[in-house]
Amino acid sequence: MCSILTKVRPIHRAVALSLRLGASTECSRYAATQSRRLSRGVNSVVDPLLINARFYCSRTAKTEGLLFRQFTYLHCKFVQNTICHLFEVESCTYTYLLADTKTKEAIIIDPVLETIDRDLNLVMELGLKLTLAVNTHCHADHITSSGLMKKRVSGLKSAISKFSGASADILLSEGDKIAFGKHYLTVRETPGHTDGCITFVSADESMVFTGDSLLIRGCGRTDFQQGCPKCLYDSVHDKIFTLPDNCLIYPAHDYLGQTVSTVGEERKFNPRLTKSKDEFVEIMNNLNLPKPFKIDVSVSANLVCGLHGL
Amino acid sequence: MCSILTKVRPIHRAVALSLRLGASTECSRYAATQSRRLSRGVNSVVDPLLINARFYCSRTAKTEGLLFRQFTYLHCKFVQNTICHLFEVESCTYTYLLADTKTKEAIIIDPVLETIDRDLNLVMELGLKLTLAVNTHCHADHITSSGLMKKRVSGLKSAISKFSGASADILLSEGDKIAFGKHYLTVRETPGHTDGCITFVSADESMVFTGDSLLIRGCGRTDFQQGCPKCLYDSVHDKIFTLPDNCLIYPAHDYLGQTVSTVGEERKFNPRLTKSKDEFVEIMNNLNLPKPFKIDVSVSANLVCGLHGL
Repeated sequence: MCSILTKVRPIHRAVALSLRLGASTECSRYAATQSRRLSRGVNSVVDPLLINARFYCSRTAKTEGLLFRQFTYLHCKFVQNTICHLFEVESCTYTYLLADTKTKEAIIIDPVLETIDRDLNLVMELGLKLTLAVNTHCHADHITSSGLMKKRVSGLKSAISKFSGASADILLSEGDKIAFGKHYLTVRETPGHTDGCITFVSADESMVFTGDSLLIRGCGRTDFQQGCPKCLYDSVHDKIFTLPDNCLIYPAHDYLGQTVSTVGEERKFNPRLTKSKDEFVEIMNNLNLPKPFKIDVSVSANLVCGLHGL
Repeated sequence: MCSILTKVRPIHRAVALSLRLGASTECSRYAATQSRRLSRGVNSVVDPLLINARFYCSRTAKTEGLLFRQFTYLHCKFVQNTICHLFEVESCTYTYLLADTKTKEAIIIDPVLETIDRDLNLVMELGLKLTLAVNTHCHADHITSSGLMKKRVSGLKSAISKFSGASADILLSEGDKIAFGKHYLTVRETPGHTDGCITFVSADESMVFTGDSLLIRGCGRTDFQQGCPKCLYDSVHDKIFTLPDNCLIYPAHDYLGQTVSTVGEERKFNPRLTKSKDEFVEIMNNLNLPKPFKIDVSVSANLVCGLHGL
C-alpha cells in the first residue's frame, strides 16, 4: 500500500493525488440535537423532485462498482405514551460501509463500539479488506469502535480531522482524498458543531456524509465542544449546499427514522439552515438542550479512538 | 384514474395490464423472529460481490425516475448491559415510500400508525400524490396507519393480500401489478409466516420488498397466524431466491440495524434458508419464541386497516 496524504485546494480540484490507506504519515463532539419537523416558510423555489428526475433518490449512488451499506445503532429513552410503548428512540446513529466491488477495499464511517461484531461480520462475509475507520468528528453521544477495530483487523488505520484534538493514524484536512479501490471520498472541513467536523463527498458528488454538520431537517447543536453557530452556518452553505441538489445526504444521526435526504430538500425544507445567518445564530443560541447523557465518557474515549485506545 | 385489476400468470409475464390505483374493483402474522447471525456452513458458491459489480448495492434501485425512501420505526425493550445503556432495540419496522418523480404518483408499503405524521409530512413536502397504502401482511407487532391515512389523504386506497383475512379496498393476489406513474411492483404470494404474506418485486427486479417472509439473515416465525414452515421455505426458494443475485432485499424488519441485503447474500448466508427443507422445518418448529407483546391489539386492528377502520 502506498502512503500518500495530499492536500488539495480548492475543494473541487479535479486532479488530485489520493490518500491511500495504510499511510504512514504521522498524524494523529457532542452529537446532534433533535432535528424536529418542520417549518414551511422557506425561501427556495427549487422542486427537489424535478431537479434531476433521472437520478433523484432512486438509488443511493450512481457510481458503478461501489458497494454501499447504511447501518443503524439506536439509543432509547423511557417515554410513557398512549399506544402502549414504554420506550422510544432517542437517537439513531448511522454507520456507513463503502467498498470497491472489484478490489474489495473498504472503508467504514463512524463505526460504533456496540455494533462492531455486526459490522465486522458483514465485512468478513463479503470478503472485504477494511483499510480505514474514519470518524466525522469526536462524538459525544457514543463511543467509536475504531480503536477496537484496529486491534481486530490487521492493517486497519484510523482517521479523523486534524482539528478534532483526537489521536488517529491519519489526521485529515480540507481536500484530502480517502481512496478505496477506484473510488474515493473528498474531505470538506465543516466546523461549527465541533471545530473538528468534516464531511465526505463521493467522487461523483452523488453522496455526501455530513456527520452532525447537517442532519435531515436539522443540524448538530453548537453549545459546546468548540461549537460555533456562525461557523456551522457558513460550513453548510459553503461546503454542502453548493453540492448538486440531487446529491444524497447521509447524516450521522436521525431521530425520526429517516435514512436519507438530498441537498435540494435540505436547501428547501431545513427549518434552521433556510433562515438568515442571524436568525440561525439566534435559534442555535437558544436551544437550551440538556447535557448529553454520555458526553463525559464518550468524548474522553473518542479522543483516543474509543475505549480501546489508538 | 383507470380501474383495472389484472391477474398475471406466470409471474414473469412481461406484458400485463396494471393495477391502477383508485381501482373500484370490489374485492374483498405475527411479525418476525430475531434474525440472528450467522452460520458459515452454506451450500452456495456464489460471491455476492462479483455477481454483477456494476449494480451491486451501489444504489437502491437502478430505475430512472423512481424516488425511493426507507423509514424506520423502532420498538425498544429494557436491557441492563455493561455499557450504560438501559434500553435496546427489540425490533425495527421498515416503511417504504416509492414514487414516480415525473407524475408524482406514490405508494407506501407497511406504514405504521405512530409515524403517520412523519410519512405524510414528507409526502406533502415532495408534492407527491399518495394513491395506495399497502401491507405485506396482517402485522402482529405494530398497527398499520393505512386506515387513518385513508382518512387524511383524499382518494387513498388500502391494499393487502386476499388471503390475509383482512379488509382493504383492494385485495391482492399472485401476479397483480401495483402501478404508480410509469413504475410498478408485481405481487408474489409468499405464504408461510402467515398465509396472507405477499412480496413486491420492482419491474426491473432490482428491488424486492419481502415483508416478514425473508429477513436479513433470518425469516419471520411460523408458529401462529396460519404459519407454515414448509410453505415459507417454498415461498422463499421459489419466489425470492429465483430473483437476480444483485436484487436488493428490503424487509419489513431488522433487529441489528441492517437496512438492506441482496438475494445473493441471503442465498449464501441466511442461516435458515440455506438449510434443507427438513432442517428448516425442524429449526422453525423449535424456536420457542414468546408471544409478541402487541399481538392481540395489533392483529385485531390490522384486520380492518388499523385502529381507525377501513
